[in-house]
Amino acid sequence: MNDVLFERHRERLDAAVAASASRGYFSAFGESVPPWSYPAEQSRAGTLAFRAWLDEDFPIAAPGTDGTVATERSPYGFDLGVRYPRVVDVDALLAPVPGARAWRDAGPDGRVGVCSEILDRLHARGFEIANAVRHTSGQPIAIAFSYSVASALDRSLEALAWSWREMTRIAPTTVWQSPAPGGSQVEKTYTVIPRGISLVVGGSAFPTWNSWPAIFASLVAGNRVVVQPHPSAVLPLAITVQICQEVLAEAGFDTDLVTLAVGGCGDRLHEQLAVRPEVRIIDFMGPAGFCEWLEERAGQAVLFTGCPGVNSVVIDSTPDFVGMCDNLALSIAACAGQMTTAPHNLLVPRAGIDTDQGPRSPREVADGIAASLDRLLHHDRGAIEVLGALASPAVLAFAEAAARKGEVLIPSRRIEHPSYVEAEVRTPVLVGLQVADADVYSGESLGAVCYLVETADTEESIALFYLMASRHGAVTAAVYSTSAEVVEEVREVALDVGVALSENLYGDVVVNSVSSFSDFHGAGTSPASSATILDAAYVSPRFRIVQSRRQV
Amino acid sequence: MNDVLFERHRERLDAAVAASASRGYFSAFGESVPPWSYPAEQSRAGTLAFRAWLDEDFPIAAPGTDGTVATERSPYGFDLGVRYPRVVDVDALLAPVPGARAWRDAGPDGRVGVCSEILDRLHARGFEIANAVRHTSGQPIAIAFSYSVASALDRSLEALAWSWREMTRIAPTTVWQSPAPGGSQVEKTYTVIPRGISLVVGGSAFPTWNSWPAIFASLVAGNRVVVQPHPSAVLPLAITVQICQEVLAEAGFDTDLVTLAVGGCGDRLHEQLAVRPEVRIIDFMGPAGFCEWLEERAGQAVLFTGCPGVNSVVIDSTPDFVGMCDNLALSIAACAGQMTTAPHNLLVPRAGIDTDQGPRSPREVADGIAASLDRLLHHDRGAIEVLGALASPAVLAFAEAAARKGEVLIPSRRIEHPSYVEAEVRTPVLVGLQVADADVYSGESLGAVCYLVETADTEESIALFYLMASRHGAVTAAVYSTSAEVVEEVREVALDVGVALSENLYGDVVVNSVSSFSDFHGAGTSPASSATILDAAYVSPRFRIVQSRRQV
Repeated sequence: MNDVLFERHRERLDAAVAASASRGYFSAFGESVPPWSYPAEQSRAGTLAFRAWLDEDFPIAAPGTDGTVATERSPYGFDLGVRYPRVVDVDALLAPVPGARAWRDAGPDGRVGVCSEILDRLHARGFEIANAVRHTSGQPIAIAFSYSVASALDRSLEALAWSWREMTRIAPTTVWQSPAPGGSQVEKTYTVIPRGISLVVGGSAFPTWNSWPAIFASLVAGNRVVVQPHPSAVLPLAITVQICQEVLAEAGFDTDLVTLAVGGCGDRLHEQLAVRPEVRIIDFMGPAGFCEWLEERAGQAVLFTGCPGVNSVVIDSTPDFVGMCDNLALSIAACAGQMTTAPHNLLVPRAGIDTDQGPRSPREVADGIAASLDRLLHHDRGAIEVLGALASPAVLAFAEAAARKGEVLIPSRRIEHPSYVEAEVRTPVLVGLQVADADVYSGESLGAVCYLVETADTEESIALFYLMASRHGAVTAAVYSTSAEVVEEVREVALDVGVALSENLYGDVVVNSVSSFSDFHGAGTSPASSATILDAAYVSPRFRIVQSRRQV
Repeated sequence: MNDVLFERHRERLDAAVAASASRGYFSAFGESVPPWSYPAEQSRAGTLAFRAWLDEDFPIAAPGTDGTVATERSPYGFDLGVRYPRVVDVDALLAPVPGARAWRDAGPDGRVGVCSEILDRLHARGFEIANAVRHTSGQPIAIAFSYSVASALDRSLEALAWSWREMTRIAPTTVWQSPAPGGSQVEKTYTVIPRGISLVVGGSAFPTWNSWPAIFASLVAGNRVVVQPHPSAVLPLAITVQICQEVLAEAGFDTDLVTLAVGGCGDRLHEQLAVRPEVRIIDFMGPAGFCEWLEERAGQAVLFTGCPGVNSVVIDSTPDFVGMCDNLALSIAACAGQMTTAPHNLLVPRAGIDTDQGPRSPREVADGIAASLDRLLHHDRGAIEVLGALASPAVLAFAEAAARKGEVLIPSRRIEHPSYVEAEVRTPVLVGLQVADADVYSGESLGAVCYLVETADTEESIALFYLMASRHGAVTAAVYSTSAEVVEEVREVALDVGVALSENLYGDVVVNSVSSFSDFHGAGTSPASSATILDAAYVSPRFRIVQSRRQV
């Protein structure tokens, strides 16, 4: 059975291994294929499947649970009401799983086969999952589908490809010949073993995109995985675990190799689990506060963390002012700036910048972006599909408070959702600040806001980029300049602080586009951030190689 | 210059990369070549070079130092009196190094070239370093040379090979083509960048063997390395840093990329350094206490730790009783049991074992080992070259105390050293215990002692192996049995607890033999142990890949 699965998925795996090295365009799950190019009935069936969960008991069992808990509310304005088994006994949840040995003994090929099959099953239920993501995180459906399903699947395949390559790097057996005259011959066997329990703590903004690669990198390495969703975004991961268990069972493995661990609001289950000695791997991407907490408290585990930081755009000059503003507008508007890859600070010299349309002051740059946003978000129906809904009242409150801390260069506009009257659909606000306002522009952002910081000159912009990234970290950075020297200088700083840099992007690729198998997400260099999706350091610490040897 | 160095060492590097995958016998620095097969004048020159350091100022500069400190005493009974610059200002020591960027920009090939050249220079001064190791750790000169120099060099080359392969795994540049009709073309550049300052904390028992692979894995990845030797074993690492700086300078790089950080006894410099935010990588192999301290306190850094644990030998039956006793005797006697790979507990069923010479009781097993030890250590001169000197008075006190906690089955014998009257050369003691004596046989050992624990039967022996390894960790494990079922059962337990297993070893390969490029040292699975020398997980977290991209 396992051999059959491995052979079934072998060709795609080989292509993925090659793509992860050559790093050109590659997508097995169509991360760039928009949802509307699928048959309409598929999309409709997914919506119905999602709706069927509402106000129901989610049919999944987990050790150590008793009773149920329902904690989710859609940012589009209704309670999901899905009830999940509630973890009440962490000892029971983490007790050894009988099928752990069989999973280890399946070997890299066997586990890759099973995991590959799970990816296909997730893909088959992609619209259902996209709806679940949409109604927990607020993402517009198109982004929920292409980013949180298709791209997350491509990233997961990337995890399988890197892991498989690393696990099969050395010969499984060898005969070692002592060089001494008449010396011994020793036969050696090398076995990949798991590191321990892998805890994947889900986020609220991106319930699947960070968690799926983590789940599959850990599972394929032989680890048992405990999936602990954010209370406000359980359903996408509950469906994920259900599908994992379904395929594990079909392939004859213990379904408890992947378990869902849901706590009530206030249970702080993630904290309870993170410090347990059995937990040897922890994945979490979200606010810096918990990343730092993990660094201080969860020393028994290897940590894969990522926190947003402060993303800078150094704006120096451009030969295509409108193109630049269009590109920036798209990056700011996508998910209303709630993505961790979105621009945080636009750094513009006080004296303005040179453009193909003559010099442009900071205010005129803001006006250019405002015009681009208008073109992009002119039609409410289209705007909703770019912006989505604000994830929570906290995001709205944060954006409104931020607007009062500077000059509002582009005000936020509320858009009525035709179907969901309570949905908070807002265009992001652009707030003008001075360099002295560091307490505002250096803070963690919840989204829906972007700052334009006036600097003395581009030198100061670059210095500010360095300062923000080295102190607070950054996930992305960008530069617009017609000067090769300026671009080179920013590139050097980006290397110094370890942040991915986008140079002079125009057209359909924006600073927050990350393409699987080609772009790295995060560099693991920011304060409290240690994970890159996806490189060897993301997969190789998740397994160990143990040898046995015997005289021939 | 860097290209020249890379090309000079390219062939050896390629062979090392191949060997690290195929895992048969490979040695570039002759780890199995005994020192006496080198020309006598080379050995004599090394001894003289070592002696020339005694009572001198060691000529090395480091930022943040003032005055000197001399802390070393030879286990052969004299003070070394070498004075090293003393670190008094940690801020200055860790201040940014001007040449860091040039080192990063040298790229993987350039850095591999320089590091390869350093290995050759270390090899050229191998006898000098072996003497320094001998007179700080007590190792006999043959082991100091083959293990602490030649094998450490082979392990370092292994580190370069793994690192180079991982760093060059992905294309340095690519052109990504958006799949959308008329979509963008984006050129991408991927650069390997260092993680931060790498702190290598040296041990007293093996000053070079653990530290060299760590230094080179970090340095070749572009990191700056701060080498912090144990106060009782500074000289081997001081010479190491001197040679690193010599080659770096010749190749035009900043010598402060590798610095020596020596504190006085009681300065606890290792603790001061370990918690600094600039320090992002820490290597330490030694007592579990400091490994645990690092896990609790140094969350800002990725840790590569190793602590000794409790190594078990399950003795069930043998078709070659004398061969088994010979093999065990050699593993117990090497370095007087002070190696972390040495057997800690011999587990023998109370009713005895089946052998080719009829049944043998636990007492008779001990007698067999005693006879083997007698043959091995009969001549004092030869014995000294196996045992070395006890590293410190603490080891002697530990062994003497241990002997009082059970029945002395094989007493320790003191051997007069012909040249060094104060050297404590002792044969290890074998102490008989019962299963109930867990407080004795489950503790960390300083060496010079081995326990024979009487169990109810082999089942209990295996259970005790599992218990010790899962609770306290283990570096090695071994089994002697004529039953395929028993061997298979022990192998399963070894996989469960993640410990390398030696099955039925006779002849020249003993349980504590670890062959570079073939054997893994440690599995990173023991409590408070996270490092395996040497696998992908040992090298890949030491660097990061940062991309920049631009529209074509």
